[in-house]
Amino acid sequence: MWVCTSLCRIRAVAGPRHWLSLASGHRGPAASSYSASADPSQVRALVYGHHGDPAKVVELKNLELAAVGGSDVRVKMLAAPINPADINMIQGNYGFLPKLPAVGGNEGVGQVVSAGSHVTGVKPGDWVVLAEPGLGTWRTEAVFSEKVLVSVPSDLPLQSAATLTVNPCTAYRMLMDFEQLHPGDSVIQNASNSGVGQAVIQIAAALGLRTINVVRDRPDIQKLTERLKNLGAEHVITEEELRKPEMKNIFKTIPQPRLALNCVGGKSSTELLRQLAPGGTLVTYGGMAKQPVTASVSLLIFKDVRLRGFWLSQWKKDHSAEQFKELILTLCSFIQRGQLTAPTCSEVPLQDYQRALEASMKPFVSSKQILTMC
Amino acid sequence: MWVCTSLCRIRAVAGPRHWLSLASGHRGPAASSYSASADPSQVRALVYGHHGDPAKVVELKNLELAAVGGSDVRVKMLAAPINPADINMIQGNYGFLPKLPAVGGNEGVGQVVSAGSHVTGVKPGDWVVLAEPGLGTWRTEAVFSEKVLVSVPSDLPLQSAATLTVNPCTAYRMLMDFEQLHPGDSVIQNASNSGVGQAVIQIAAALGLRTINVVRDRPDIQKLTERLKNLGAEHVITEEELRKPEMKNIFKTIPQPRLALNCVGGKSSTELLRQLAPGGTLVTYGGMAKQPVTASVSLLIFKDVRLRGFWLSQWKKDHSAEQFKELILTLCSFIQRGQLTAPTCSEVPLQDYQRALEASMKPFVSSKQILTMC
Repeated sequence: MWVCTSLCRIRAVAGPRHWLSLASGHRGPAASSYSASADPSQVRALVYGHHGDPAKVVELKNLELAAVGGSDVRVKMLAAPINPADINMIQGNYGFLPKLPAVGGNEGVGQVVSAGSHVTGVKPGDWVVLAEPGLGTWRTEAVFSEKVLVSVPSDLPLQSAATLTVNPCTAYRMLMDFEQLHPGDSVIQNASNSGVGQAVIQIAAALGLRTINVVRDRPDIQKLTERLKNLGAEHVITEEELRKPEMKNIFKTIPQPRLALNCVGGKSSTELLRQLAPGGTLVTYGGMAKQPVTASVSLLIFKDVRLRGFWLSQWKKDHSAEQFKELILTLCSFIQRGQLTAPTCSEVPLQDYQRALEASMKPFVSSKQILTMC
Repeated sequence: MWVCTSLCRIRAVAGPRHWLSLASGHRGPAASSYSASADPSQVRALVYGHHGDPAKVVELKNLELAAVGGSDVRVKMLAAPINPADINMIQGNYGFLPKLPAVGGNEGVGQVVSAGSHVTGVKPGDWVVLAEPGLGTWRTEAVFSEKVLVSVPSDLPLQSAATLTVNPCTAYRMLMDFEQLHPGDSVIQNASNSGVGQAVIQIAAALGLRTINVVRDRPDIQKLTERLKNLGAEHVITEEELRKPEMKNIFKTIPQPRLALNCVGGKSSTELLRQLAPGGTLVTYGGMAKQPVTASVSLLIFKDVRLRGFWLSQWKKDHSAEQFKELILTLCSFIQRGQLTAPTCSEVPLQDYQRALEASMKPFVSSKQILTMC
């Protein structure tokens, strides 16, 4: 087990200005008695030194803030969510892993405190989100290079801004990049109550697309159905209903989907494939069932179904910073028009992180955990 | 069981001029004593009246030839192969099924006997192949609409001409339509000894592409390896070798493939997927293992592998007759330059069809059965 004895230096991903120092090997309990250091160069952060169960390996520590260089920006973090990918990254099950020790969290919203002399794009008071993953957002303050920051309007709801750069971006790109959809076309998805799922429902509705939303059956299914329909879902069905022959009745009033979005895998994705229109695409962006995606040979050959995967990190590698900023601005405009809201969230103070981590890993939890630092 | 009692009319696919009449319900044994009718309007054909085991449902019958209309061409068939798709079609396991009763066979080469007054593209003596499936090529003569015929040079080897319109077309399109490959790039395939597999090896070599060819292990594997290498295969490996860690050594001297061609499914296709370069495509065109194609979620998301299917019939529906003719001419030029030969074939006279059907369904038969009518 990794133990910090004195001033262990943690290197974040985005460049030499992001060296931070661990100032005390404080094992953070789920203690609300934790108090901030009086030293303004000391910040609190959720750090993990090796991969494993997040509830065991993540610790609340004091870090020494790096000096603000000419192209750097000091940011006071306001709120940062706990996403499934954050959990997978801590567990070591992710396509990209930061060097250890690392600060957890891949997205969040912060406010600029001060900026280096070469910084032109942001000024103190601005709200910013991060263009790159792996920088560690679960902390009270950080120094980032200007190039990894994207300004967002400071009148956005806090939860919307904090959850903007992962799930809505994934939802929007999947709706835009695989099939040329037109208003009236339909999209089918599973895990429809996830952060991405809720963003898909809302963005699709804003684009005039009709959604068929698959969820796992649960005691309060009617309440969930109502909530997703209020977001713009046209159909909400359970995994069990998806498998029934009556499923085809849906297509008397809605066209067969040319796009299916899969965050589950296994049987659920097999069923999505069966519902696709000829030539349609199944895009996999998660594997909650921990089972592979299986396609019958006849669906591939005779129905020309296509299987793809989507990973926002790869999309960002393949596109310019300007294109990412454009994407963020597009999503901000959806939010400002009231077409895109944050998923149902529970705000949890940073020091109560263990409660938040545990809640984020429970099945059927319909609420995204957001760590708040203010 | 369907029994023809008198003049049952068989409708072929391509238009009203293709109505033929069954002249006698002759159950064709594997008899070499079968003799042709003296009536010139009577032709022999392999007919099936319902779906089932080809060895049981296919019968050699006399058919009455339709009159040759203004846009029609009377063609004496020279040779027609038995392809796996022909067998699947008779069994009823295919994406497209002709109306029953039907004449078997989907490709072959014939020679023009006479042509209607409006026919301009072909003349008596020309060699022709068929642009459409389901027309029934297992017969001595037929009347086809000019629009379904494509002229080919009459100096082609008979076996090459007879096997031109299915396997080499499939191989060429799969090499061209899914990934932009350049000389030096590699392609991996399974079922490499199939008709398509052998065409892939040769066309790839002609295009400067390097092939990794997977085959099932067998007693004479060395002989098979040598034969495929003589066709242009760079590597020939068994399914077992494909699964071994040593497989990665191959990529010290050959780039990872961006294209994988799958005619098997199941474990074999899973292994092909694992060998693909990031962003590469697995194209499925057959399912010999009768098992689906399975892709891990992480390969889809983090390696961006893509799964597609290919069906030549669909390609033809989506493209013009001129584009198909162009494809055929391209392949003819490969043949004329000695870059594309027919797969190893066994020529079997039409009346010995039962022997040919049985041989075509045996595993590990490295020889394609070609019915000859001359």
